[in-house]
Amino acid sequence: MPSKPQIKLIRSLHLKKVRKEYGLFVAEGSTNVLDLLTSPFNLQWLFGRDAWIERFADRLEDVNVQVASGKEMEMMSQLKSSSEVLAVFKLPEQPVFNFEQMDDYILALDDIRDPGNLGTIIRTADWFGIKTILCSHETVDAYNPKVIQATMGSLSRVQVHHVDLKTVLSEMPVDIDVYGAYLHGEPVNKINKTGKGVILIGSEAHGISKDYLPLITHKVTIPSFSRGKSGAESLNASAATSILCYEFRRN
Amino acid sequence: MPSKPQIKLIRSLHLKKVRKEYGLFVAEGSTNVLDLLTSPFNLQWLFGRDAWIERFADRLEDVNVQVASGKEMEMMSQLKSSSEVLAVFKLPEQPVFNFEQMDDYILALDDIRDPGNLGTIIRTADWFGIKTILCSHETVDAYNPKVIQATMGSLSRVQVHHVDLKTVLSEMPVDIDVYGAYLHGEPVNKINKTGKGVILIGSEAHGISKDYLPLITHKVTIPSFSRGKSGAESLNASAATSILCYEFRRN
Repeated sequence: MPSKPQIKLIRSLHLKKVRKEYGLFVAEGSTNVLDLLTSPFNLQWLFGRDAWIERFADRLEDVNVQVASGKEMEMMSQLKSSSEVLAVFKLPEQPVFNFEQMDDYILALDDIRDPGNLGTIIRTADWFGIKTILCSHETVDAYNPKVIQATMGSLSRVQVHHVDLKTVLSEMPVDIDVYGAYLHGEPVNKINKTGKGVILIGSEAHGISKDYLPLITHKVTIPSFSRGKSGAESLNASAATSILCYEFRRN
Repeated sequence: MPSKPQIKLIRSLHLKKVRKEYGLFVAEGSTNVLDLLTSPFNLQWLFGRDAWIERFADRLEDVNVQVASGKEMEMMSQLKSSSEVLAVFKLPEQPVFNFEQMDDYILALDDIRDPGNLGTIIRTADWFGIKTILCSHETVDAYNPKVIQATMGSLSRVQVHHVDLKTVLSEMPVDIDVYGAYLHGEPVNKINKTGKGVILIGSEAHGISKDYLPLITHKVTIPSFSRGKSGAESLNASAATSILCYEFRRN
């Protein structure tokens, strides 16, 4: 069972500065935790309800798992209704992303603030086999518990780098295309796709910051294909990213 | 300014039964409220901060708007950080959906529980000019404040019907196709699309309930187009719906 200091520390790991200080992050939920257990992430502590441990005994053979009561889970959880399992992993070393070896599409996120949106984007990238996401420092931290929750385990397979995005993109080799998602650009289904490049998504509220404009080689738009007048002013950032991933993979 | 009984009532409108009892729902946020003000929804009360009322004075000429203080907005709001404007509208009469006149795609949602997902789906439908969404009774209520928030005004342009979905679909004319979203079906980009039909999405946790199986004419899947093994077990329900709307509109 978790000790009082453990519970206190785990509760405080919803704060980015505490995650940095201790080099730890929290994952909750069965899918999430089981996926992360088989990933390169290093486990620090694992707490489960009795029934969960029993149910997944065959996947926990070499794992040090501790029983926690419903009340203890509730005390540790960031979720409205606490999960049957909570794990604490070590924050990985941030590997350096190298454009020279880039041979596929990657995502770049300028200022995605909503944890649910970032988590959904990581999950979608994973579905489409997109292995790398570059996030501006304004983008919500990928190890935020609400992000982890929405990734449904995909953070174990997608590398998310928090970087000075403008600097990184401006130092990129010149033969790499940057496709920026705009409300008024070329229809994305008509764009010539080369099989590699950066797909850049802007903030939920303001789109792509104009500082990126010199770096963008293609302004792309998701057409509404509407018979009449389309109503919505824009798409949700994660909805737009999903469609772009699909369209770039389709071609 | 809002009276104490008004504040109390508005606070309680996050509950579906109170919305039904009083025939009212709440919308917050500037985009949302301004879009709904120009829609067929009937306004009951509108409360705004001074600065908001001044900023949008030209759009509020024929509208009865009352000033509210920051503290009053906070007391009425369902949001973590309250908005500059909050409106209460009358719940519309539910119009009956008639398949005989159907000449486009519509969405059908079986058991979408997450308000953010439903709101995003309504917004995406609006972007792609899809005018009708049928929701099972298990699906979260479209007038839930968190749904309204995520629609960003699109509820004024998309008709959402909460119905006994199985009965409604089983009584549908036989020439209407039902495209069910599954993890193992035909790739949706290879499907022959006829220009009208029902796109059916299942629950976040369990997919489409097996009770619908006899009604489905096409099982469709969003391919991962992945070079290697794709990781994620599934897509988020609103991400999947976005891609399906795009793909059906594209063809």
